[in-house]
Order: sequence, then structure tokens, then C-alpha cells
Amino acid sequence: MINVTLLGCGGGMPMPFRNLASLLINYKGRKILIDCGEGTQVSMRLAKSGFKSIDIICITHIHGDHIVGLPGLLSTIGNSGREEELIIIGPEGIKDTIEGLSVICPYLPYEIKVMESPKKNLKFELKDKFELTNDYSDVEISMIDLEHSSPCLGYGFYINRKRKFDVDKAVNNNVPKILWSKLQKYNSYEFEGKLYFSDMVLGNKRRGLKLSYITDSRPIDSIKEFIKGSDLFICEGTYGSDDDIEKAIKNKHMTFREAASLAKEGEVKKLILTHFSPSLIEPDQYIENGKEVFKNTILGSDRMEENLTFK
Amino acid sequence: MINVTLLGCGGGMPMPFRNLASLLINYKGRKILIDCGEGTQVSMRLAKSGFKSIDIICITHIHGDHIVGLPGLLSTIGNSGREEELIIIGPEGIKDTIEGLSVICPYLPYEIKVMESPKKNLKFELKDKFELTNDYSDVEISMIDLEHSSPCLGYGFYINRKRKFDVDKAVNNNVPKILWSKLQKYNSYEFEGKLYFSDMVLGNKRRGLKLSYITDSRPIDSIKEFIKGSDLFICEGTYGSDDDIEKAIKNKHMTFREAASLAKEGEVKKLILTHFSPSLIEPDQYIENGKEVFKNTILGSDRMEENLTFK
Repeated sequence: MINVTLLGCGGGMPMPFRNLASLLINYKGRKILIDCGEGTQVSMRLAKSGFKSIDIICITHIHGDHIVGLPGLLSTIGNSGREEELIIIGPEGIKDTIEGLSVICPYLPYEIKVMESPKKNLKFELKDKFELTNDYSDVEISMIDLEHSSPCLGYGFYINRKRKFDVDKAVNNNVPKILWSKLQKYNSYEFEGKLYFSDMVLGNKRRGLKLSYITDSRPIDSIKEFIKGSDLFICEGTYGSDDDIEKAIKNKHMTFREAASLAKEGEVKKLILTHFSPSLIEPDQYIENGKEVFKNTILGSDRMEENLTFK
Repeated sequence: MINVTLLGCGGGMPMPFRNLASLLINYKGRKILIDCGEGTQVSMRLAKSGFKSIDIICITHIHGDHIVGLPGLLSTIGNSGREEELIIIGPEGIKDTIEGLSVICPYLPYEIKVMESPKKNLKFELKDKFELTNDYSDVEISMIDLEHSSPCLGYGFYINRKRKFDVDKAVNNNVPKILWSKLQKYNSYEFEGKLYFSDMVLGNKRRGLKLSYITDSRPIDSIKEFIKGSDLFICEGTYGSDDDIEKAIKNKHMTFREAASLAKEGEVKKLILTHFSPSLIEPDQYIENGKEVFKNTILGSDRMEENLTFK
């Protein structure tokens, strides 16, 4: 099971009535944060979340409402006692940005590894914390280039479900008992000159969980394939009214209806709308614009939680 | 009259129950802001304050809790339609800091003039906005070097009270009537080959208003002279309990009692305590530690307002 918390659902500017869009993913006590506008760390406190266990921060793009809170958060993570390396993933320009922002948090008690616009999926194994791996991954993070007014990444998270141990298969494949537990951990293992594979002891592959997070962008075609079959699709809906379509095109955002169309064509299970314009005081007035296209559309709200469980 | 609003009273980290220490001075519709931690612009919205009329931002020091909100605020000021130059005053290092932070607000519709650790008082005349002047000033800003873990400035604000026009004096000094209004505006004016001075038509000098803002610092002696006779002294009291004196010394802060001692020796009229440690949940438990030393000590609170009027 993973728990996701929408720390905020606003775009543009921090407002008293709504935090800026940000998502916290919690998997077995370790955390991945997406975006960090001004106020994100306060929302984390309200959500009773700790700071020390944030292993990965994904930044969608370098606009203030998605990144102003980062230096303050990095300091707070430092104050929480973290000493392990922290990974920051972001679009083109993220390295210079982190360097620029470090003027106000120059001394952190941990290292930061910045991964600028990675060209392939990143695999993470959950040990004491999320660690980069080339092998079996607990969580795989994928990126997509979005269409916004600055380089912007959408993120996909695939949470692998472990395969069951199959006694009959192990016996049929003549795998010595002494290797049974090892082959549940490693892809292969050499024993007395012979190579054994995890496939020899594990049952069928099982579907994991897929979570997609898209903001800020126009609804380009490539998003549909990227989000295909997501258990949860969190997508920007900066504008609620269909009448705001011109604003959406001009400012490189989406309307509720456009986000819902992506959800439908991407055959996701559920859509949560987020990143509402500061002028959109009551987004519930426009929810039908989304529901008409994709029934399981719901409005995000600050600190709304969702638990995704393996079926 | 000037109006001051404590936008927040916290130190260290932004907390859900308390904004970070920041002060907004409003004089005839134009604004001076002191410090801008994460959340300051949200507190300004809660205080129903506009953004366009902020002419001067004074930064005490370059620690996250006093400056993280600056790039977001600068963007919001830009969105408010400001096109006039904005002045930022700060300690040693402020120029590099503003340059570093500009990675997340690279395109602002106005110029920023950064004044790093000015060596003399700055005089401002209030025209359409606060403008630097060498002549008559409406507001004079003075700086003092504090004792903190990074270069830190305390700020003094002296609001001049205009002298009254004195008809008898003007007549006795044989000032032609045509110059009476001019000499209320200019220090001197030449007319028909003769130089006239404002002193020839104006009554006695009148006491203005003095406001002092000190955070973060140990209570060094030089502060007493700097704040002498202030109508309002806003001072950090990071720790309430006298038992925290060692922490105060180590972290270069003050206890309530130390701040009150400064207020007493500086012969100020009123002390407001601010910049409470995140661990100081209920500062009112310790207010007597201040009042015992200086009776007119009060606790700051978010968006507390004070109006200072000429006597």
C-alpha cells in the first residue's frame, strides 16, 4: 500500500485559503515529495508528516509556485537530523537553480544529488531508505516532457508488487532449499558452480500500482500513453470553466474538461484535479465539466489523502 | 501617523500556528517591509495588504527564516502591476543572495536597487512613492550591526514631523509672500538675488516618531543608544524562560528578560517581543520575565497592529 497526500492544490501564488500544489508519497515510512512551493513544509506539519524520511524530491519545473519553499524545506530536513544523501530530480536548469538557491541554505548536514532531466526511468529499492538501483526496484520513477512556458516534467510512479514464493516451482526446478530465501531477494545466485534464477522459485508476475502526476501543461497527446492505466492520475486543472479555454491555451495550462479527457483516453481509474488558479475560489462550481467526460473525477483539496492498495 | 503590522512573530521555521517574524510599515499608503520568511506574503493577504505599494524591503540577515519568501514576494509584487524601482536594503552578502535567488524570479517588470550594508542613514522623501533624497526626509532609516551568527542589521525608522508655518516669523524675517509656500517645501530658495531659508518661515522643530526593530542578536550595548527614546521598540525574544539563557548565548539570541533590559536602558516607550522559538508554544507563560524589568512589555502576535501618532 502507498499513501499519497495532496499537500496543496493551488497554482500561481500562495493564498491563505489554499496551499500550493504539492504531493507527498509515503511508502513504508519513506517519502517522495513532488514540488515545493512556499508553504509546503507548513502543510507537511499540518499533515503530521516528518521531514527526515524524505529521500527524493521531484520538481516539475522552475516556477516560483513549485520551488520557492525548497531552500526552507532543505534547512528543515537538515534540522530534523538527516545525514543521508537526498536526491532531487528536476527539469533542465535544476542544477543551476539548486546552486542559486543554496545561498540561503549553504550548510546542510547531508549531500544532495541533483539529477537533471534524466533520460531514462529511475529505479529505487527500498532499503533503509530509497536507493538508486539497476536491479529489482520497489519504485520506478518515469518522466515525460510537458508543454509549459518553461521546461517541465510530468512524473510517473510504478510501485512493484513482489511475486509470491512458489514451493512447487522451486521443487520442480530442483532448487536447493538453502537458496529459496536468497532467490526471493536476488535475481540470480550461483551455488556449487550452477546459476539459479529467481524465476525458478517465484510465481507469476503481479500487477503493481501506477500513479501519475501532471502539472503544469497543455494536454498533449504523449500524456495519454504516459498515464495509461494509472490507478490514480493527479492532474492540473488550473481553470474550471470551459470559457477559460483561451486563457488555458495562452498560459499553457488545462481546463477541468481537458484534464478529464486525458483521464478518459488514458483509461485511468481515478482523476484528482489540482493546481487551481488563485481566481478559482470555488472549484466545485465546475466539477461537472470534468465528470461529464470522465465520471471518476474528483476535486483535490489541501491534505486530501488516498491509499492505493495492491488488488 | 504610521501603522505597523507584525506579519509574524516566529523564528527558525515556519509553523502552522505562527508566521515568521516580519514587519510591515504603512505610511500614507506606501509601505516598507522588514524581512520576508516563508509565508510572509500569505500573512500580508490575511492583513488585507496590497503588494504594489511596497517601496522598500529591509532584510536583517540572510537566514532562511528571514528571506526564503523573498523571491515569491518579488514575483507577486510583479503580478500586482508594479513597474517602479524597488529598494532592497540588507547586510553584507545581500547582493549575491538576491542574484542567487533570482534564478526563480528572473523576469520582473521592475528594477531592484540593492543597497548592501549602507554606511550612513538613508533618507526617503514620500512623493508618489518613497524616494531616496539627500534633502528633507519624511522617513530616515538607520542601521546597526548586530551580534548574530551571520552579518545582521538592526533597523531604526525616524518619521519626521513637518514644522508648522509661522506667519509672524515670516513677516519679521521680511520674506516676500510669494515665497511662503515654496519655503515650506524647500530648504532654501533664491529670489531676486537673495537666498531665503525655510528656517525663516517655519516654527520650532517638532519631535517625530521613532521605531526600532532588532532581530536576531545578542543584547549588545550599542543597541541601547541606537533605540534611545523609541516610541516603539520591536525586539526579538527567542526564549521566554530565564533558564534558556545558555541557549540564547549559544545561538546568539535573547531571552525576554534581556530584551526588556534593552528596552529599559534604551528608555523606549513600548516594547513588543517577537521572533519566538518554534519550541515556545505559549510565550504568555513567560511575559512576566519581561514585565518585571520593563513594565510596558507586550507579546507580539501575528497581524497585531499598532498606530503611532505624532503627539
